[in-house]
Amino acid sequence: MNDTVDPTEIAGAPSEKTRLRRYNWLAKYDRDTINAIIDAGIVCQVGYVIDGMPYVTPTNHWRIDDFVYWHGSSASRMLKAQQKGIPVCFTVTHLDGIVFSRAAFNHNIQYRSVMAFGEAELCAEEVKRRALATFTDRLAPGLWDYARLPAEQEWKATKVIRMRLDEVSAKVADGLPSEDEEDYQSDRWAGSVALKMVQLDPVPDPKLRGGIEMPAFVRNFRYVGVK
Amino acid sequence: MNDTVDPTEIAGAPSEKTRLRRYNWLAKYDRDTINAIIDAGIVCQVGYVIDGMPYVTPTNHWRIDDFVYWHGSSASRMLKAQQKGIPVCFTVTHLDGIVFSRAAFNHNIQYRSVMAFGEAELCAEEVKRRALATFTDRLAPGLWDYARLPAEQEWKATKVIRMRLDEVSAKVADGLPSEDEEDYQSDRWAGSVALKMVQLDPVPDPKLRGGIEMPAFVRNFRYVGVK
Repeated sequence: MNDTVDPTEIAGAPSEKTRLRRYNWLAKYDRDTINAIIDAGIVCQVGYVIDGMPYVTPTNHWRIDDFVYWHGSSASRMLKAQQKGIPVCFTVTHLDGIVFSRAAFNHNIQYRSVMAFGEAELCAEEVKRRALATFTDRLAPGLWDYARLPAEQEWKATKVIRMRLDEVSAKVADGLPSEDEEDYQSDRWAGSVALKMVQLDPVPDPKLRGGIEMPAFVRNFRYVGVK
Repeated sequence: MNDTVDPTEIAGAPSEKTRLRRYNWLAKYDRDTINAIIDAGIVCQVGYVIDGMPYVTPTNHWRIDDFVYWHGSSASRMLKAQQKGIPVCFTVTHLDGIVFSRAAFNHNIQYRSVMAFGEAELCAEEVKRRALATFTDRLAPGLWDYARLPAEQEWKATKVIRMRLDEVSAKVADGLPSEDEEDYQSDRWAGSVALKMVQLDPVPDPKLRGGIEMPAFVRNFRYVGVK
């Protein structure tokens, strides 16, 4: 592997912190690529520090323009810490495949990931309400207007945190590894196995009352991570 | 939602830090459940602190007995920091489905996750070599003996970190949310859409020399995350 940094590969890194050093040829700094990776899932991992110790919390995320958002209970430890504006590290990762190589050192995975550094910011009430409606409707268009709207005590029980996407980079590994010349000449097989997410048919809640039809947004539902 | 802590639910939490406070009825502390969630994937997120700032790195992981392992380049920032024995937070998350509820507040996801706190430990050379062989063979039984073994400079370029699973908890959300009684009586549909990982057929490397047959471990390959 080429471990030296090629300056042509790192153009566009928004900061020293987000500049990829390892496997820098996989780095992507353009916002379209970054947004597409963030938008292809609804589960992120948020890293933060409390009393000097690292915490990583998996949570749902969504993006509106240059911000990523996540939400939780008003009583949550994570949100209580984050609403003070502490530094956070936001990551999204999608596993796309396994690469079998001729050399054990070159087995690899295909993946797309985003890493962003920033400061958590507690959303004001109005921003929070719009952000949650956007999240819900983006998951399944029409869902927000269909479900029973939150009562005031439910709104109070929920906080929304957001973070501006400033220091952000992506990594996209979608190829086969380059191997040593003598390995290419060997009799060993190499190739890849793609992995993908699929969705199954909707299953009604066993407690569903009779005669309630499945709404169009469920019949037409397509999870963002299903290609 | 019930935000009070039910003491019967938290029996078994190995420490105050790993005791689930939010949604504590989803908590699992038994090692079989925890191990199964860790073993059902090969991508984890490792959180750590450098100069007071949070970092989360997605990386491959595997488990041997009571340790989780990950590896990387000897030159990696993450591994250089972690080999000093710093505190880390190890997480694995699997998304299993989307839950549509009658009330907007109750939409949810089905998932399995593990969170573990511990200290990173650099593996000695012998432990490292055995651990990487175990990882490779667990991914695809027979893969280690098939591929060209690492040369000495390749071994030198790789470090393995491990962490003992002491402070660890899991969360398993596999049901439908409980809704308010009046919501059950509404005319709104509720239910779930399961998501699952599938694998596609193996694709040979376009650079593969003619006449090389696909080995059995590839023909029989089954990714651990495919149910």
